[in-house]
Amino acid sequence: MDSPEAKPSTAASSRSLNRNNTRHKLVRCGTEIFCERGFQSTGIEEILQRVGIPKGSFYHFFGSKRDFGLGVIDNYAEYFEKKLARVFSNTELQPLEQIVAFVDEAKRGMRKYDFRRGCLVGNLSQELAALDDDFRIRLEQVLQSWEEHLASCLDRAVAAGQLPMDTDAPRLAQFFWIGWEGAILRAKLTRNDEPLDKFMALFWKAARRSSF
Amino acid sequence: MDSPEAKPSTAASSRSLNRNNTRHKLVRCGTEIFCERGFQSTGIEEILQRVGIPKGSFYHFFGSKRDFGLGVIDNYAEYFEKKLARVFSNTELQPLEQIVAFVDEAKRGMRKYDFRRGCLVGNLSQELAALDDDFRIRLEQVLQSWEEHLASCLDRAVAAGQLPMDTDAPRLAQFFWIGWEGAILRAKLTRNDEPLDKFMALFWKAARRSSF
Repeated sequence: MDSPEAKPSTAASSRSLNRNNTRHKLVRCGTEIFCERGFQSTGIEEILQRVGIPKGSFYHFFGSKRDFGLGVIDNYAEYFEKKLARVFSNTELQPLEQIVAFVDEAKRGMRKYDFRRGCLVGNLSQELAALDDDFRIRLEQVLQSWEEHLASCLDRAVAAGQLPMDTDAPRLAQFFWIGWEGAILRAKLTRNDEPLDKFMALFWKAARRSSF
Repeated sequence: MDSPEAKPSTAASSRSLNRNNTRHKLVRCGTEIFCERGFQSTGIEEILQRVGIPKGSFYHFFGSKRDFGLGVIDNYAEYFEKKLARVFSNTELQPLEQIVAFVDEAKRGMRKYDFRRGCLVGNLSQELAALDDDFRIRLEQVLQSWEEHLASCLDRAVAAGQLPMDTDAPRLAQFFWIGWEGAILRAKLTRNDEPLDKFMALFWKAARRSSF
């Protein structure tokens, strides 16, 4: 953004930047509030107030609160994909240490917000899976994509001799995300990262010694 | 209830039975709705309409919607305690088969409601842990009690030679409930019991072979 090319040279591109900025602010605010207290009980009015824009601007970007919710999920999915791609391509670390790095980053993230926010995908799954098939299917897709990222890392761990040769990486990855969402949920109750540590300790023992 | 002793013999005891019945109906209705769509977005009006009682009756039993929510948790906790006590005292089954029976019963329960309801404790934890300390602390207590029931069953499994002697039963029980809540959450997304099976398959492998 500091390069001359990035500066708006016309009124039109300035408006375009503002539009992107407003959409981004709305989505960021939605992510924060939905993580802490959920989707249904959050009113659009509150989002508008926090971001400081009029109602018309909101409906310029999103047809409805529901569209907004799906947009917030898409944005979170994109952010998380990038995070996983970054962590799992860190060639300074061995594959299993990449997973440790992911967990450490998640712990820091949870601590930063006093263990109040948890995972947007877990939160909205709990709340909306029974109520809206579009949300349910999208949230399941997101988790399946996370499974693929992790399975590929676990495969590399097998190739590097860090896990037994007969490891079933996709199955172990499914197990990880099932338990991980449970651990994040529990950490919101205990307000500390003990549930994450407890889950990971047994995950590692299970992964390292057995034919999954 | 069929025995003569249970029949109301006076107008006062009839009123008392009706009162208990109304409270029970309110709590049951709250449990159903909170399980499917959460606490915050559910209005008291809807509960009253479903149960078919006036507002005054509700406030006769509960000081506020919040009190009602805590009452619903207490009732669910009591119901679940009884269920665990029943399953884990079934002397026709070995300890580990008692756990299998618990899982099978949970799967039947989820299937009955098309995987829409999940676990009240998991649902409300996700939604309210960050918002209300009374809810958060109560929900954590409930899960700790479930851990104790399971740890005692796992200890009996060790004594019966079903698990290795060096099993850390409390730790394994904590791991179980962390992952179990994650599996129930995921089953709401997939609308089938595969996440429960996937979690349990690896839980058993981990438990049977290692020094937890």
